[in-house]
Amino acid sequence: MRIIGIDPGSTIIGYGIVEYTNSKFTCIDYGVITNAGRDKSSEYLSTEKALSSIMKKYHPDVAAIERLFFFNNQKTALPVSEMRGVLILSLARAGLPIFEFTPLEIKQGVTGYGRADKTQIEKMVRIILGIKKTIRPDDASDALAIAICGANNYTPLKVTGNNK
Amino acid sequence: MRIIGIDPGSTIIGYGIVEYTNSKFTCIDYGVITNAGRDKSSEYLSTEKALSSIMKKYHPDVAAIERLFFFNNQKTALPVSEMRGVLILSLARAGLPIFEFTPLEIKQGVTGYGRADKTQIEKMVRIILGIKKTIRPDDASDALAIAICGANNYTPLKVTGNNK
Repeated sequence: MRIIGIDPGSTIIGYGIVEYTNSKFTCIDYGVITNAGRDKSSEYLSTEKALSSIMKKYHPDVAAIERLFFFNNQKTALPVSEMRGVLILSLARAGLPIFEFTPLEIKQGVTGYGRADKTQIEKMVRIILGIKKTIRPDDASDALAIAICGANNYTPLKVTGNNK
Repeated sequence: MRIIGIDPGSTIIGYGIVEYTNSKFTCIDYGVITNAGRDKSSEYLSTEKALSSIMKKYHPDVAAIERLFFFNNQKTALPVSEMRGVLILSLARAGLPIFEFTPLEIKQGVTGYGRADKTQIEKMVRIILGIKKTIRPDDASDALAIAICGANNYTPLKVTGNNK
């Protein structure tokens, strides 16, 4: 099974493609879609186009995306939610089943600890996927963590077993 | 010039089509797109489809949509913002210039009073557009108000002059 994980943001969107076969994870690709400095219409159109070409390249079976659950910053929450609408519509148009995870669920799903920071998530993602090089930026490692949670939605993820 | 006004909501989206020619407004159509009771993917896809068929029918030149500026209710603000992303992407794909207005700007643009209530907006919309029958639901009259603001973005709207 191939999962695309998406970390939504208003100007930087992380994506990660993960293969999950026989209880083993493999990283296929990761990166970011960036959008700064253009008007909203062209930002949304170019995001949709970029996501669409990633999907055409990797043919994921399932999509997983972070959802906002509770927030303190009104200024960022609204544009991120708008971008989530753009991303979910693009994924839905491709016919993908979409799973949503809160930041807490993602942290718990990957590190077993709901208050894990970005560094801990990045480390666990590398251990689970067998990646030696540091994953940059955070948006990409978060997206891979979300993809891992998406796989976990089908079959239980045994983090301990994978990390021995 | 023909303007489509959109009042975004997570389950009910108001739309209004207004023609503005020689400083005169005409109402072409208004109504709502409803979405309740389905999963998010199919809701977003069906909203896009409904909006697309409205645009194919009426060929607006410009779109105007309400934007959230300040809010107290986190539970509604996020899904409404997501739907705004879906709507803006759909409008952008049709190549329409998109104007955004805050609730304050819409109230002021149509009634001249930033704290006008739904009833006052509906009354002014009917006066401006020469509609005798009460406009229902509020989402539709709000959408017409937004369309009027969209026209106003090109040429100054003389509310007093139109209502004499």
